[in-house]
Amino acid sequence: MRKALIAQGGGPTAVINQSLAGIVIEARKLDVEYIYGARHGVRGIINEDFVDLSRVHIPTLEAVARTPGAALGSTRDKPDLQDCERICRVLQAHDIDYFFYIGGNDSADTLQIVYEEARRSNYDLVCIHVPKTIDNDLVGNDHTPGYGSAARFVVQAYMGLNLDNIALPGVHVAVIMGRNAGFLTAASALARKVPGDGPHLIYLPERRFSITSFLTRVDECMRTHDRCMVAVSEGIQDGSGLPISGVLQKSSERDAHGNLQLSGTVALSDLLCAEIKRQLGIKRVRGDTLGYIQRCFPNCVSDVDSREALRVGVMAVRYAIKHGKSGSVAIKRTKNYHVSYDLQPLEVVAQQTRTMDEEFVAESGNDVTDAFRDYLDPLLGSKLSQIYRLSAPAVRKILTQSSAT
Amino acid sequence: MRKALIAQGGGPTAVINQSLAGIVIEARKLDVEYIYGARHGVRGIINEDFVDLSRVHIPTLEAVARTPGAALGSTRDKPDLQDCERICRVLQAHDIDYFFYIGGNDSADTLQIVYEEARRSNYDLVCIHVPKTIDNDLVGNDHTPGYGSAARFVVQAYMGLNLDNIALPGVHVAVIMGRNAGFLTAASALARKVPGDGPHLIYLPERRFSITSFLTRVDECMRTHDRCMVAVSEGIQDGSGLPISGVLQKSSERDAHGNLQLSGTVALSDLLCAEIKRQLGIKRVRGDTLGYIQRCFPNCVSDVDSREALRVGVMAVRYAIKHGKSGSVAIKRTKNYHVSYDLQPLEVVAQQTRTMDEEFVAESGNDVTDAFRDYLDPLLGSKLSQIYRLSAPAVRKILTQSSAT
Repeated sequence: MRKALIAQGGGPTAVINQSLAGIVIEARKLDVEYIYGARHGVRGIINEDFVDLSRVHIPTLEAVARTPGAALGSTRDKPDLQDCERICRVLQAHDIDYFFYIGGNDSADTLQIVYEEARRSNYDLVCIHVPKTIDNDLVGNDHTPGYGSAARFVVQAYMGLNLDNIALPGVHVAVIMGRNAGFLTAASALARKVPGDGPHLIYLPERRFSITSFLTRVDECMRTHDRCMVAVSEGIQDGSGLPISGVLQKSSERDAHGNLQLSGTVALSDLLCAEIKRQLGIKRVRGDTLGYIQRCFPNCVSDVDSREALRVGVMAVRYAIKHGKSGSVAIKRTKNYHVSYDLQPLEVVAQQTRTMDEEFVAESGNDVTDAFRDYLDPLLGSKLSQIYRLSAPAVRKILTQSSAT
Repeated sequence: MRKALIAQGGGPTAVINQSLAGIVIEARKLDVEYIYGARHGVRGIINEDFVDLSRVHIPTLEAVARTPGAALGSTRDKPDLQDCERICRVLQAHDIDYFFYIGGNDSADTLQIVYEEARRSNYDLVCIHVPKTIDNDLVGNDHTPGYGSAARFVVQAYMGLNLDNIALPGVHVAVIMGRNAGFLTAASALARKVPGDGPHLIYLPERRFSITSFLTRVDECMRTHDRCMVAVSEGIQDGSGLPISGVLQKSSERDAHGNLQLSGTVALSDLLCAEIKRQLGIKRVRGDTLGYIQRCFPNCVSDVDSREALRVGVMAVRYAIKHGKSGSVAIKRTKNYHVSYDLQPLEVVAQQTRTMDEEFVAESGNDVTDAFRDYLDPLLGSKLSQIYRLSAPAVRKILTQSSAT
């Protein structure tokens, strides 16, 4: 009699439940008798808070797969060594043979510790990390499930923001998720359809951010386009590695003799907008923060992302059950666009952060390259919104002309 | 030879170009020889910045109609009396017979002044206001074009936010557009599918907001659901009519001896979150501001809204050309769900703000009623996302039970 346990960790995504369904459906196909789900990740394991997924109907699983979120519940808890020992003890008490943890590099890290703990106590546990993160920051992967759909949301959001800004021109600054890796912010570039479309400036955490040069670029862009759309990663830092929000907040504090109360609560977009208004004297400056809606928006899911998220779940089960191997499932691109799946050692993924490839960042440091556009395009899925522009001949002026002559 | 002029004013929406296309297509059908579009609303009229829409191909118009934004460009300029006189002079110089202005109550106001100015100078100008606003705050209308699609965006965003918050429980506060009318914030209620779904608290500008009672409700909700999702209109005010963001900012300033620099830039959601953390000591508190993406998101358009936005354009032309009447086109609901169209005097709409009907606001003051849900439901359009929940039996604990006995 074989038993599997599945857990979900970190931020939810639009397709993480596809991976859950993929694991359950494939494990049943391979006759795993018991398939448990841990509620809220490692915390659920520590508390033995399990549900039995063995008898949930397939249509229900498939409907849940199409629903964003993390159906088992997730957690931000980072288990210490003692917690990992406890996790190992709980898994052993329940006779778990296969442990599948769907998550990012933190989850891979936890899994690696649990795996080593199990080996130390001669407990024959197969540990498989199933990749998931909208940040796309797992090493050894061409891309990660969750990224394509979040990128699709950013692209569609920017299509709308660009049309909005064309209608009511001015400066617009949007802050996009991604502390260490700029992949999601970079996606905004794929919203451009015709020359002059925004975003005009893209700032990634992979490049140090200079407020002075930023203001110069905004000023130039306003002169050229009479408007300026800026996409900024939340994680941008200055030359000495300090977060820009901290730098701007600090200078504001100094100016006004300190307001520690609000520190950390002022959004980066608001700080950048205030700086543009103050230094460049531009009137219409608007800021947005694409907050939590970018990772679970239900109506903006990439079909490619969905399929691959399901597939990493299926492959996880095959590696575990057919081959008895532990590791981290990885997506490799074989051509444009085909992928294959691979199993890499847990330590390759754990605690590592992938950032934007050098060839993806433009030389200017405030844009992406065609190579990035080619990379992301197939991941966005099919049926992206079509945007059309009105083009009509100008009418000859009557009053203005006569007053000029 | 007859001439029409079309302009778009105020914030863009997902369907304002449907109204534009509706006017152009119907006016051509009724043999209006020249159809001009003013670039960026009244500013374009003042500058005689017109494009000729008479010969734009119908498929192009239909493609633009499906594109969010404001294809002619919009403006926030509020023309004074002198501007309105200039507008009148420009229209007369171009022999405009029909002036269609697509916009909110500000646009209706401008139109009324222009209309009166034209009458005073015996210029036979027909002025038609075509309703548009995501705020849904035009009097005499059951609802306005633009609202259904923005509401659909809010509903889908809240479906995702709710799933996100179920996965990682805590307090979540989202600020939604609507300074004087709570219709868009109220829409969040339609994201609820099963009992316990968020938003758990909805605060509208139609009710005075008390920070003390708000904190009590959040605390209660955390005790009941172990999480609390709050939807707040940007326009909420305290008992004396002061904006809550100002009230919270002021108290923070007092605490810290003033930081005028940042006043007005700190988002309401951040201020409310800081207050919850400080007063209730809750750890996981997250804020979002559904910014500009809520009004032009291209992938989240209500088909009902699109159809009606086109239709108000068509009806505007019929009132103007077949009946030679000036006024503001209004949508009336005849049954659930059918509408008819009416022409009401400009002064009914101009400068007036419709707010949420009394029967739409729950007695508690922090929710909406079934009457509101019935009102909004048909406007959201077809094929809303389906959300499914995982339900599976709990597994018997082993270690935890034995330690308890």
